[in-house]
Amino acid sequence: MATGEDTTLLHNSRVKKQAGPTVSRGKKKAVVVTSLIVIAVLTLFIHWIDQSAYGPGKSHRSSSNKKNLIFFVTDGMGPASLSLTRSFRQYVDGLPINDTLQLDRHLIGSSRTRSSDSLVTDSAAGATAFSCGLKSYNGAIGVDQFKSPCGTILEAAKLEGLLTGLVVTTRITDATPASFSAHADYRIQEDLIALHQIGEYPLGPVVDLIIGGGRTHFYPKSDPGFGSRTDGRNLIKEVQKRGWQYVSDRAEFDALQLGKNVSLPLLALLADNDIPFDLDRDEKVYPSLEEQTMTALTALSEATRDSDKGFFLLVEGSRIDHAGHQNDPSAQVREVLAFDKAFAAAMEFADNSDVETILISTSDHETGGLVTARQVTKEYPDYLWKPEVLGNSSYSGEYAKRKILNYHADDKLDFVRHEVLERDLGITDYTEEDVAELASLKDSEAIQYKINDMISFRAQIGWTTHGHSAVDVNIYAYANEKNAWYDILDHLQGNHENTEIGQYMAKYLGLDLGSVTEKVNKTKHSPDMAVKELGTSEVYDENYHKLIDLQGL
Amino acid sequence: MATGEDTTLLHNSRVKKQAGPTVSRGKKKAVVVTSLIVIAVLTLFIHWIDQSAYGPGKSHRSSSNKKNLIFFVTDGMGPASLSLTRSFRQYVDGLPINDTLQLDRHLIGSSRTRSSDSLVTDSAAGATAFSCGLKSYNGAIGVDQFKSPCGTILEAAKLEGLLTGLVVTTRITDATPASFSAHADYRIQEDLIALHQIGEYPLGPVVDLIIGGGRTHFYPKSDPGFGSRTDGRNLIKEVQKRGWQYVSDRAEFDALQLGKNVSLPLLALLADNDIPFDLDRDEKVYPSLEEQTMTALTALSEATRDSDKGFFLLVEGSRIDHAGHQNDPSAQVREVLAFDKAFAAAMEFADNSDVETILISTSDHETGGLVTARQVTKEYPDYLWKPEVLGNSSYSGEYAKRKILNYHADDKLDFVRHEVLERDLGITDYTEEDVAELASLKDSEAIQYKINDMISFRAQIGWTTHGHSAVDVNIYAYANEKNAWYDILDHLQGNHENTEIGQYMAKYLGLDLGSVTEKVNKTKHSPDMAVKELGTSEVYDENYHKLIDLQGL
Repeated sequence: MATGEDTTLLHNSRVKKQAGPTVSRGKKKAVVVTSLIVIAVLTLFIHWIDQSAYGPGKSHRSSSNKKNLIFFVTDGMGPASLSLTRSFRQYVDGLPINDTLQLDRHLIGSSRTRSSDSLVTDSAAGATAFSCGLKSYNGAIGVDQFKSPCGTILEAAKLEGLLTGLVVTTRITDATPASFSAHADYRIQEDLIALHQIGEYPLGPVVDLIIGGGRTHFYPKSDPGFGSRTDGRNLIKEVQKRGWQYVSDRAEFDALQLGKNVSLPLLALLADNDIPFDLDRDEKVYPSLEEQTMTALTALSEATRDSDKGFFLLVEGSRIDHAGHQNDPSAQVREVLAFDKAFAAAMEFADNSDVETILISTSDHETGGLVTARQVTKEYPDYLWKPEVLGNSSYSGEYAKRKILNYHADDKLDFVRHEVLERDLGITDYTEEDVAELASLKDSEAIQYKINDMISFRAQIGWTTHGHSAVDVNIYAYANEKNAWYDILDHLQGNHENTEIGQYMAKYLGLDLGSVTEKVNKTKHSPDMAVKELGTSEVYDENYHKLIDLQGL
Repeated sequence: MATGEDTTLLHNSRVKKQAGPTVSRGKKKAVVVTSLIVIAVLTLFIHWIDQSAYGPGKSHRSSSNKKNLIFFVTDGMGPASLSLTRSFRQYVDGLPINDTLQLDRHLIGSSRTRSSDSLVTDSAAGATAFSCGLKSYNGAIGVDQFKSPCGTILEAAKLEGLLTGLVVTTRITDATPASFSAHADYRIQEDLIALHQIGEYPLGPVVDLIIGGGRTHFYPKSDPGFGSRTDGRNLIKEVQKRGWQYVSDRAEFDALQLGKNVSLPLLALLADNDIPFDLDRDEKVYPSLEEQTMTALTALSEATRDSDKGFFLLVEGSRIDHAGHQNDPSAQVREVLAFDKAFAAAMEFADNSDVETILISTSDHETGGLVTARQVTKEYPDYLWKPEVLGNSSYSGEYAKRKILNYHADDKLDFVRHEVLERDLGITDYTEEDVAELASLKDSEAIQYKINDMISFRAQIGWTTHGHSAVDVNIYAYANEKNAWYDILDHLQGNHENTEIGQYMAKYLGLDLGSVTEKVNKTKHSPDMAVKELGTSEVYDENYHKLIDLQGL
């Protein structure tokens, strides 16, 4: 029938040319009128559809194919982190009980997280699911389950002419950013990962902007203080010679003017290892994740201003995971709040951008087995948990632990009692046994675990592991353009495999990851000397978590 | 401009009447052609929208206002229960790693669960949020936070001419079904709740169909065996005299022919207290939740066949919560699977129904602080959990506990060793200390907790409490009609307060809960003698969890 109508239409337009002016004018009028009805009906329909889902901030932008994709990873943030942080903020800020986080208002679904070799993934397999759109084994950095390098969305975006960036609060060579910008059989090959990130592999340099921590794998071991490269190379000097802009501290970061004064490629390494937890962060020394994100967005946006291609940016709330590993609820709520601000800043960027821009945010996995309830008595528990305990603590367990370890004066018991427990952590109901134990413990991790358990117990917050868990994690999204918003819902509303998120991102940007895989398959990705020192790769496989742990998580 | 076009349109149609046949035919053709374009564009647009979210099973039904609403409550099921059950089923049934539950395919959002007086709700406040659409205190059954009865969606539906039903696997007088069909200051007033449920309160009988457990509060304490009413009344006999159909066992249930042979009102009480866990259920004695649900759906559907109003049905997977309280992962996965089948059966019912039918499924809260990972060593944990352990156990801890307690022969150690641990629970790596402890423990709960911990530890499944937790719970939905589907998404997609679910259900059925509140405000809802015996209401408040526990949870 449609074909028949098409014929009528063609016939009609031919007739029109032969028809007299009166007939023509009548038909024209009818067409105009009916067209106006079409427009009215469609407008009403679009309005109705508008109401039927979370609308984006603004409506249609230019019809060009230029797109920005901002992908957020909340490393280690499970569903319980949201209820924990939301209720914590309601309590400390005196907000109503239905007040929500920015993220809460953009929930679209959840992601199944298992890796190819375990029901419980690690961050490497988790990030590779996003970057390559495939399931791989725990520990895999941009390689498939057979240890073959796979093309990543960041690489494909760069090859298509988009600019690319990585923003994190941990080492830039850590699993999540590494899986987008490097290929390594094992996540602890961080010396190799740093080489890939500065372009020493078949594709050459593909990352235009790096802001995070992790100077250690860019400096030689011989460098006094913080270097750890076993090959003796100073990658910072090398990239500076090649014209990269290098930023190493708060003053130099501030000189970037939140992205207005950036020359790409940019390498901003603001800490030897991790940037401190937001709870401990001295803002005179370290920028916030929000500032890092704004700087990246403005810099990439400015640099693509005259291009017909946009950018791909990864932003990771990296240390939500660390707070989970350490079972530190005080640090975690502040990490989630810091991330929420970065997400909000990116939403505002999208709202003000003329380029179609989407935000997708999810987690690789949950960490710690966090539960917003804990039975602290043999008797049947009360139904509650206590946010005020987290509100009373001004520092993380990580910070307090260092403070105790670094104190060597005679009055250490008093120091632990008044300076650490009472002043820093807001704990006044400690026992003398607690004080003695904290003052005498030599094991750094043991001190930290005890402090965090004192906080968690009092807040009635539970944890079941220092590792990861298998619960589904949330997916959040935002778009500044309606079609893009519906496109996201088409593909990511509801419950999905983590790999579908990676596959969707590639589809959204029109990227062919397979062709990139062909280009990276000659990449050096297997362990070298450093690993041989540690034994066979089997032993290495089994122990890699512990090895990572020794490296400072 | 729109007004101008309207004028043109009017003018045009006036002109048309005066115009000659040729002109008219030309215009008619143009209108037809353009109209066809409208239809084509709209069809394409509707098709595109169709793809943009989970589509319902079938498209438009009758345009009548007749509606069925099936509301599912997965009591105590948090996000971790889903990943646990999904991976368990993949393992035992040899399914691919991306195989999902029926529920997984219908996730639309999540619900915040806190009550008016605590960050951690109980089932009473949780269910009252759904039934009355308002936040109340823990323990509240269909009363607001000032202990005033509030009109429920079930009551309002009945007053509007819909039929109503309750299907559960626990006592019908327990918190969730009670909050829809009764008003009581405290959830343990189950004698009073039973009276409301059979119509002894201002509204008279409002529940047309009851299928569940809980005979105990319908029989007098004097009745040998199972009665617990302190007022000496036998409610079963009373309602039978009033013409209710009463069903008390499997044979009578089977005679209902899955709903084809039901006379309403129906009171089917299939257990004194709870119906056994699905893992322990003898199908010759107890129907499944799926059978209960199918029976209710067919009975209500048949009874409303000639009505212009449909029905409201509550279906509760009640004992997911009990498995959580008991920290029994083996029982829990089977409870979730049994619920998933009931949900699937209701979807099939909707697909085959000529009446617009929607399904909404959510939880009141999470129970147990379930985590799909548990650190079982001092050393850094492996990233995994072991579904095979749950697959090896053929009975719940609750069942095994009873078996041990009821065994009095001399060879009890051997019995525990071979009959319970090895055969029933599939545990072969027990120690002799485990056996001795299980054989000698007198405390019923202690035996159960030990058994469940043996299973959980081996499966590397964590729990942090025997109570509830505050994590957001999932919302699932389905509709057999497109507009209804979009209406659900409009209101419940994303993250919502639990009260919004209740408010939406009332709106969907066009119910005014406020007017029902006026009608029920004279309901007797405060504790009577039974409570005075227990002390003041303050003491009662503090202890109500324990009191419930004494009653068999």
